[in-house]
This record gives sequence, C-alpha cells and structure tokens, in this order.
Amino acid sequence: MREKAHVREVGPRDGIQVVKTILPSAQKLAWCRATAAAGIRDIEVTSFVPPKVIPQFADAEEVARGAVAMGGFLASVLVPNLKGAERAFALGVPVVNYVLSASEAHNLANVRRSTEESLQDFARIAALRDQRPGLRIALGGGIATAFGCTIAGAVPEARVVEIAVRLVEMGADELIVADTVGYGDPRQVRRLMTAVIAAVGRVPVTCHFHDTRGLGLANVTAALEAGVRAFDASLAGLGGCPFAPGATGNIDTEDTVFLLEQLGFDTGADVDALVALRREVEGWLPGERFSGAIARAGLPKTYRAQAQAAA
Amino acid sequence: MREKAHVREVGPRDGIQVVKTILPSAQKLAWCRATAAAGIRDIEVTSFVPPKVIPQFADAEEVARGAVAMGGFLASVLVPNLKGAERAFALGVPVVNYVLSASEAHNLANVRRSTEESLQDFARIAALRDQRPGLRIALGGGIATAFGCTIAGAVPEARVVEIAVRLVEMGADELIVADTVGYGDPRQVRRLMTAVIAAVGRVPVTCHFHDTRGLGLANVTAALEAGVRAFDASLAGLGGCPFAPGATGNIDTEDTVFLLEQLGFDTGADVDALVALRREVEGWLPGERFSGAIARAGLPKTYRAQAQAAA
Repeated sequence: MREKAHVREVGPRDGIQVVKTILPSAQKLAWCRATAAAGIRDIEVTSFVPPKVIPQFADAEEVARGAVAMGGFLASVLVPNLKGAERAFALGVPVVNYVLSASEAHNLANVRRSTEESLQDFARIAALRDQRPGLRIALGGGIATAFGCTIAGAVPEARVVEIAVRLVEMGADELIVADTVGYGDPRQVRRLMTAVIAAVGRVPVTCHFHDTRGLGLANVTAALEAGVRAFDASLAGLGGCPFAPGATGNIDTEDTVFLLEQLGFDTGADVDALVALRREVEGWLPGERFSGAIARAGLPKTYRAQAQAAA
Repeated sequence: MREKAHVREVGPRDGIQVVKTILPSAQKLAWCRATAAAGIRDIEVTSFVPPKVIPQFADAEEVARGAVAMGGFLASVLVPNLKGAERAFALGVPVVNYVLSASEAHNLANVRRSTEESLQDFARIAALRDQRPGLRIALGGGIATAFGCTIAGAVPEARVVEIAVRLVEMGADELIVADTVGYGDPRQVRRLMTAVIAAVGRVPVTCHFHDTRGLGLANVTAALEAGVRAFDASLAGLGGCPFAPGATGNIDTEDTVFLLEQLGFDTGADVDALVALRREVEGWLPGERFSGAIARAGLPKTYRAQAQAAA
C-alpha cells in the first residue's frame, strides 16, 4: 500500500479566472466530469465572487448546482465574503473555501478590507454554517500570499501561523496555505509548513502553489517533507490572480500527479487521461498560455514500472 | 558567510548542440565573456566531437583557444573519445570533461561502443594526460543517463555508483552525474547522489539535470540535500541530446541561480546580468525554444533582501 497524496483540481476556478474566454457552464461541468473520470475526486468548481468583478463566474450557481448533482467527486467552491458563503450554503455545496491574504496590502487590493476584517468575516461565515440544519458543510480557510506578496514583499511567517490558528479556532475544517504570487522557495516552504502543521495539529493542510518563478514542484517536494499531503493544482498550469501582477499559473495538475507518483505516493489519478482532457480544454480556450512538461515530453518509460513496483 | 554553490554554464556546449543556427566563433566567445562578467566563472565552452556529427562544433579549436586566452573564467570542454581529448590537450584547456552513458543502449547510440569500452577509453585519456609535461589538466568523468534512459528505461543505481568509482580510480578529478533525458525525480536524486558521494569520498560531484519533465529544480534541491554543491546549467534552458528523443533543455541558468540564492547559497552570479545576456542570445538564435521562469516573471521583491540578510 502506497501512502496517499491528494490533488484538488482548481482549474474550473483559479484556472479560468483570468482567461479571455467565458466558458459555457456545460463545458465547465464537462471539465469536472472528465477530471473525476481521470481519478481526481476533489474539484473546486467555481467562485462566488460578484459577476461584475469576474464575469467568468456569473454562472456560479448553475455550475455549483450541476457539480453537486453530478456526484462522483467532492465539489468545493471559493467564496470571498459572507454574501458568497450564503449563496454557496443555499446550494448545499459540501465544501466552501474562504480566502483572505496574510499580506494586508494584498487583502486590501483583493477585497478592500484589512486582514483582521476578513478574519471577522470568516467568523460570521462559520457562525452561519453552524446555525444551518442538516449536513455540516466543511469550511476551508485559505491564506493567500503566505510566502510573500508582490505589493508588500516579505510576509512574516509568525503572522501566517497566527492566521492559521485563528482560522481553525473560528471553525475552519481545513487550511489552504497559498503561494499566490510564486515567491516561495523550498527552504521557506519546509520551514513555514512545518510551523503551520505544528500549530494546527490534526487539521488537514493543503498547499496551493503557483509556478510563477519555476519553483512550484520543488515547493511541492519540500511541503511533502514537512508533512503536507494535499495540493491544489490546475490542468495545464492555467491560472493566476487578477490582483497580483505577474502571477502566472498554478502548478500543473498533470506534472504534479507525475511528481507525486514518482515519489511513491498514490494519487489515484491517470496522467494520460489528464493529458487527453488538457487537449480538449486547449480547444476551448484559444490564445491562452498552457504550461507543463509532461504534456510536451510524455511520461518516462520508468513511470509505470515504478508505480507498479511500489504498489 | 554564506556557503558557496557552484554553477557551470554549459550553454555554449550543451545549449547549442541541437539548435538550427551555427553561431560564429566570435559570438560563442562573447557569450563566454558576458557569462564571466555576470559572475559565472566556470564555462563549458565547446565540444570536441567530429564536425560531421555536430557541425556546430567545427570551430572547437578556435573557441577553446579563444576561451583559454580570454581568462577570467575556468574553461572546460567536452570530449567523446581519445581523439577529442588529444585535440583538447594540445590546446592546453585546463578542464576536459569526458562523458559515457551508464545505459549501454544510450552509449551505443551516442558513441557506438559499449560502456565498458568507453571506460577503457577514459583510462587511455587519463594515461595520456598523466604523460603530459607541465600543468596537470583536470579530467571530469561524466556519467550520462544516470537516472534512466529513453531507450533502456531504468538504469541500475549500483551500476552508476560502480562507474563513478571506476572513473575516479582511473583518474577523474571530478564527476558529473547527468540526467540526460529528464527521468530523475527528487527521491531518486537524493538516494543516488548520497550513494555516489559516499562511494567516491572527496572527489567533487556535479549534477547535470535536464528539465524535460519539469523536475529540474526539484532535483537540484534534492541534490543539495545529498551534499552536491555544483550544477551544470544552460542559459535560457537551451539544450538537449541529439541521441535522446524528447530530451528538451538543461535546467535554466538564471532560474538555477535564483533557486540557489533563495536557499541561502552564494553563487557569485548576477541574475539581472544573466537575463540581459539571455535577451542578446535570443537575437542570435531565432526560432529556438527559450524556457525559464525568472526571465518571464522577474525576481521577487524578497530576492535581494533575503540575499543581503544572509550575507
């Protein structure tokens, strides 16, 4: 039995928030269906931001409803505020991820509030969640710019750990620690993730890396060494933050799965099926930058042999 | 005092062996001069392969002679056989790197000989070196396909360690362990490089990684953890092996320097100067694939601060 490592596909959310093409809801849902068929059973399907901020997500209700009805995978959504959380709760989305920035400057640019005000907003979201009857909705607490900020520069690690602890105290069931602008390096990742995991105990911690400066997969390796076993990734490395200049894509789903499997982890995902899906999505998004090495170079001859030997 | 890490620029050798443009010798030497001015004082300047095999290196004598005369950096050359070594020795090149493949199939494709025959050839090169009067020429023993082979698949780690030991016994002053086709992963790199270093004792070991499957910088990080402090890299990630299908470029020099500096090592190199040189080389090599993240995204705001804080 190989140890499991967990990949969440965030392409239908982070991956398309800055692309030029507005995808039809049916294509977003087809993307989710094919992702689940390729073995990735955790997908962030949309974002409940105001449509006037990101028109791509004007169909958030339709996509979320469709994803929840589809089954076969765990659907999550991103919410930037209480209003977004109310919309997600109303649809019964099982996992709702809230994000704030550890960098005050980035938080102001992103949601026009201080980080402390955003923390208070999370407390209100958790209270609303707790008042709801029926199945408990899981809340993810996301910490953006945890490894540095294009506006403010360095972000104190103690501040990131403090925010992590407060999010958990307020009711977060999972933490998402994000290198929103690709400033993290492996030494910093190992140090900060070790500190976060020590501070929050048994709460699952996901890393969300961007490959802006080429260190995305080195950072995954470092996070694994610190004990992280869950990663956000985006098909074909799509993605970026509309408020972080130069913040190119997320780490590439296909390449991340390849790395995790080579390191001996079981992701449950089929790289060839992901590459086939990528070819399809390339047709939907003309003119976008598609990154990733495996789609270009192919899997090594040693890939299946190693995976089978370790299985 | 930060610990030093060593980057050797192999762009004028590995970087241009499969490009479409034959560069004039003067441009190759200008590339070397600008690399040294950017703080990288170790450059593999050319290859003494037969010109009919790689026409790019028909001017190997002229480039090697010019590089040795230029001074300001340590010039090395690659040689595939005794004949090439004789040519390099005649010019007084201070470092001569010989390469053979740990994979029999790759060695046959590359030089039409078994790995054992190539080892015997290295013994003859070392004997010839030892007979020469005057300053001792340093010999690098390169082991290609040390992490796997596109033809043969897996390469036994014990075989790589055995070849490393024999190269040292035969007179290698340095080892170069190469992931010629980009099959290596961080776990494998840590394991194999730990074994090689343990087997060869104080002989310096350089890693030569290709970024074919996106793991180049993760592999650098892993090699550092195993004790490696020297890396081959190519400006703009140029490069590839003419006998290894799909073997895209070397790890990118600018990105490798960035990573090493972020991890707290002193490379002596100036990333901005390297990026400026890259812009110039892009003009010389129309139609080639230039990779690398720093040239696209820029250094993080935290780069100089971290380097200075650690200095």
